[in-house]
Amino acid sequence: MSTPTIPVAGEDGSAASRARDAAEGAAAALEYARRRHGVFVADLLEWLRIPSVSTDPARAADCAAAARWAASRLTAWGVAAEVVEPAPGGHPLVVAARDEDPALPTVLLYGHYDVQSPEPLGDWTSVPFVPAVRGDDVFARGASDNKGQCWALLCAVHAWIASVGRLPVNLRVVVEGEEESGGRTLTDFVGTHAERLRADAAWVADASLFAPGMPALYSAVRGILYLELEAQGARADLHSGMYGGVAPNPLLAICHVLAACKPWNGAVNLPGFYERVRRPSAEELAGWAALPFDEPTFRLEQVQAEALPGEHGFTVLERLWTRPTFDVHGIVGGFVADGAKTVIPARATAKVSMRLVPDQDPDAVLHSFEDRINFLRPEGVTFTIRVLESAPPLQLPLGHPVVAAGKRALVAAFGREPVVVRSGVSLPALNLIAHRLRVPTVMTGFGLPDDRPHAPDEKFHLPNLQAGIAATIAFLRECGALPRT
Amino acid sequence: MSTPTIPVAGEDGSAASRARDAAEGAAAALEYARRRHGVFVADLLEWLRIPSVSTDPARAADCAAAARWAASRLTAWGVAAEVVEPAPGGHPLVVAARDEDPALPTVLLYGHYDVQSPEPLGDWTSVPFVPAVRGDDVFARGASDNKGQCWALLCAVHAWIASVGRLPVNLRVVVEGEEESGGRTLTDFVGTHAERLRADAAWVADASLFAPGMPALYSAVRGILYLELEAQGARADLHSGMYGGVAPNPLLAICHVLAACKPWNGAVNLPGFYERVRRPSAEELAGWAALPFDEPTFRLEQVQAEALPGEHGFTVLERLWTRPTFDVHGIVGGFVADGAKTVIPARATAKVSMRLVPDQDPDAVLHSFEDRINFLRPEGVTFTIRVLESAPPLQLPLGHPVVAAGKRALVAAFGREPVVVRSGVSLPALNLIAHRLRVPTVMTGFGLPDDRPHAPDEKFHLPNLQAGIAATIAFLRECGALPRT
Repeated sequence: MSTPTIPVAGEDGSAASRARDAAEGAAAALEYARRRHGVFVADLLEWLRIPSVSTDPARAADCAAAARWAASRLTAWGVAAEVVEPAPGGHPLVVAARDEDPALPTVLLYGHYDVQSPEPLGDWTSVPFVPAVRGDDVFARGASDNKGQCWALLCAVHAWIASVGRLPVNLRVVVEGEEESGGRTLTDFVGTHAERLRADAAWVADASLFAPGMPALYSAVRGILYLELEAQGARADLHSGMYGGVAPNPLLAICHVLAACKPWNGAVNLPGFYERVRRPSAEELAGWAALPFDEPTFRLEQVQAEALPGEHGFTVLERLWTRPTFDVHGIVGGFVADGAKTVIPARATAKVSMRLVPDQDPDAVLHSFEDRINFLRPEGVTFTIRVLESAPPLQLPLGHPVVAAGKRALVAAFGREPVVVRSGVSLPALNLIAHRLRVPTVMTGFGLPDDRPHAPDEKFHLPNLQAGIAATIAFLRECGALPRT
Repeated sequence: MSTPTIPVAGEDGSAASRARDAAEGAAAALEYARRRHGVFVADLLEWLRIPSVSTDPARAADCAAAARWAASRLTAWGVAAEVVEPAPGGHPLVVAARDEDPALPTVLLYGHYDVQSPEPLGDWTSVPFVPAVRGDDVFARGASDNKGQCWALLCAVHAWIASVGRLPVNLRVVVEGEEESGGRTLTDFVGTHAERLRADAAWVADASLFAPGMPALYSAVRGILYLELEAQGARADLHSGMYGGVAPNPLLAICHVLAACKPWNGAVNLPGFYERVRRPSAEELAGWAALPFDEPTFRLEQVQAEALPGEHGFTVLERLWTRPTFDVHGIVGGFVADGAKTVIPARATAKVSMRLVPDQDPDAVLHSFEDRINFLRPEGVTFTIRVLESAPPLQLPLGHPVVAAGKRALVAAFGREPVVVRSGVSLPALNLIAHRLRVPTVMTGFGLPDDRPHAPDEKFHLPNLQAGIAATIAFLRECGALPRT
C-alpha cells in the first residue's frame, strides 16, 4: 500500500480548502487506481473463479467463499467487514463500514457477489467460471452482473484509503449473495439492523451504460412477481395410449391458461392489470426519443431474433421500461429426455414472471392472477400458485442533490452528461435501500448493453472497470461536499 | 426337464385321433405348467431385474442382456434362438424358430423385453428393478408391459416341449427390444427377412383383460404420430428484465400453438383431421354398451382425477378406442431447477403425440400439423418439427378362423367368452405382423386394467401368468388343428 501523500483537510478548515483537498484527494485516488489497474483486474478474475450461483443449493459453499473473499479484501483495506450469517437456505451478506468523522455524510455502496446459473453450458465459448480475457473483455459468469461492477465500487474505496489515507465520507458497504435468488437475508438484515445501513446517499451500479461511452442514470426499475404455477391432473402418471382422450393433461392445461393470460402480440390479460400503470412524463418520452437507439440494430445485434413481438402501440423502449410483461421461464413435468415417452404426467409446473411498472402492486397482481387461473381452470385440473419472488416497481427522485452529485461523478468519469433512462430489470435491494431505508439513491451501471448477463458468454468490458472506479471515486468526493442531513 | 409321457400322433393318423392326441398334449402341457409355476415366477423376477429401458441409451447393455436372457432360455428349451444385431441406436431382436412338420401350420408369437423409463422414481412404493411380490402381484417396471405377458407365451412353448416332447405347430418367436422406442430393428428385419416370420397365425399379448376374469379380444389399435416441436426465438438465452416485453418467448409460443391445436374439451383443431375417422359399427357399439364399465368407477379408481375432460358427444370408451387424441408429454427449455431464474430461453421443445384411429393416415396428419403450425406461427419464432414415431391405426379381421381359434383358447383358459374391444394404445409391431406380413393375428392381453404400465408401481397379477400360459397352450393346440394355408 502506498504512503498517503496528500493532506486531507485544509488547515483553516474552510469550505474552499476542503473542496481543494477533496479535489486533490480524488486526483490522487484516481492516479492510484490507474497504476493498480492490472492488480485490480487480476483480483477480479480471482473472484470470478468462485462459482457463486445462489439459485443452486449445491453452490452454497462457493457463495460463502465469494462472500469471505470480498470481506477479507475490505478488511485488509481498512474497512471493517462482517460476514453476516444467512437466512435458512440463503447465502451470507457482507456488511462493512468505515467511519471517518461524524460530521461527514455517510455513503452506502451496494453490489452483489452471487451470479446466475451458467446453464446452458454448451452455448459458452469458454468455461463460465474460468475467466477468459479476450481483447478488452473478460468473459465469465458474473463478469458484468455484478462482480465486475461491484468490484469497481470496492476498488474506488481502496484507492481513496490507499492514496489519501482516508475517505471523504463515512462508508457503509453491502455486498449481498441473494440478488438472483430472493434476497431474504438482506431483507431480514434491513428489518433488524436498519441503523447499520443508515446513509445520506447510496450508489448502486447493477446495470449498464446506455451505449459505449454514454453513461446512464436510472430513474425507475420494474418490479417483479415470480410465480410457480402447478397443475395437477390424475393422481399418477398415465399411459397416453390407455388414457389419452379422457385423462386431464396438466401440460396442456398450463399451455391453455398461459396462452390465455398473454396473447402473443397483445396486452397481459389479467383483470385490472393495467389500472395502476402510470404513463411516463412528456419530458421522459422526449429524452428517450433523443437517445441513439435504433430498433432494427437492437433487434439484430442484441435480441438476435426475427421480430420483436409485444404490446401494440408502444416503442421498444417504452415496452422495456414502462410496460409490464408476462414471461414463461420453464415448464417442468412429463418426459423431457431424448426420445419418445407416451406419458400423461400427473403434475406439471410452470415458472412464470410478470415485470411490474410504477405504480403496480405485486400483491394486487397476484390476486388478479389467482382469480384469472380460477376462472380459466380447465376441467379436471387443480392449480396451486407459489410466490417465489415479489418486489414492487420503484421510481427514484431525480431532483435530489444526491442525484445531482451522481451526475457530476459520471461527467467526471465519462466526460459527458449521463442520459436519464429506466431499467426493465427488478432490483429488490434497491427497494430496500431507496424505499424502505429511504436513502437517496443513484442507480447507474458500468456494463455494456451487449454484456449478456444471465446468458452464455457474459462479459465485462475492462476499460469500464477503470471508468467505474473513477466514477465511484468522484461520487465519494461529491458526497463529501454534501450537507449532512 | 420331465420326460415326455404322452403320444403325440395317433398310429392311424386320423383326424379324430389327432384331435384326441392334441387334447391330451395340451392337458399334459397345462399340468406341467401348473407344477412349474413357482419356477416360472422366479425366472420372471430374474428377467424383471434387468433394467432394459430402450429409450435410455445408457441402458443399451441392459437391453442386450435382457435379449440374451430370453434367447438362452428358448435355446435351452429346444427352440433355436438368435439374437439379431440391432439397427444403429437400437436394441437386439430375439428371433427363434422350431419346425415340427412342414404339414403343420406355423404360429408366430410376439412380445417385447424392453420397458418404459421408470421415472418418476420417487412415486414408486418399491424399487422399479427390484421386483417385489406383494400378495398375488409382482411390482416392477415391465411386469405387465410386457415381460410378464411375453413370459406367459414362452412358458407355454416350454410346457408343450417339456411335457409332450414337441409342439403341435411349427413355431416362430419374436421378442423385440424397441417396442417403446420406435422398433427400427424389427422393421428392418421384416424388410430383409420376411420369410423367417411367415406364419399362418400370430398370437400377441400386449394388453389386458377387460376386467378381472374377463378376457378380451382386440379388434383395433390406435396408431400414433409422435413429434418434437422445436421453437426458436432469439439466438441466445436472454434476461427477462432486460428484454421482457420485446423478446419472443418460445415457451409461450409453444403454449399458444398447442392450446390452439387442442381446445380443452373440444376436438383436435387441425385441418382435415377427422375426415378419415371411421365410426364404429352398430354391433361394436352394442357390445361395448353391454360391458361392465362404469365411468365414475373408472374415473375414481383408474384415472384418479377430478374429471375426464375430452371431446363432447362421445362416451369414455368411444373416446379411448375410436377417437384420435392430442397430448403433450413434456416441454423442454428454459429454467426448470428449483427456484427462480429470469431467463427468456432461446429455444424450447415440446413432445407431442396424436393417437390415430382407422382410417387416419399418419403422413396426412403430419402435413396437416405442419400447415397448422405454419398458419399459427407467432411472430418472431421459428418452428421445426421432427417425427419420433409414426404408426398407422390398425383393424384386425374378426371373422378369420385364427381369431375363432383364439376365442376358443381364451374360453379354455378363462372359462368364459372374451369380450371384443379395442385398444387405445399403438403397437407398431402389430402393424408389421398383421398388415405388412399379412399374418392373421389374435391380439389379447393378460394384464389387468389397473396394472399401471408406463407409470410408477407397475404390477402384474401372477394368477394371470398362469392363465396366460394356459391360453397360449390352448391357442397352440387350436392352431395345430387349423388347415395349413
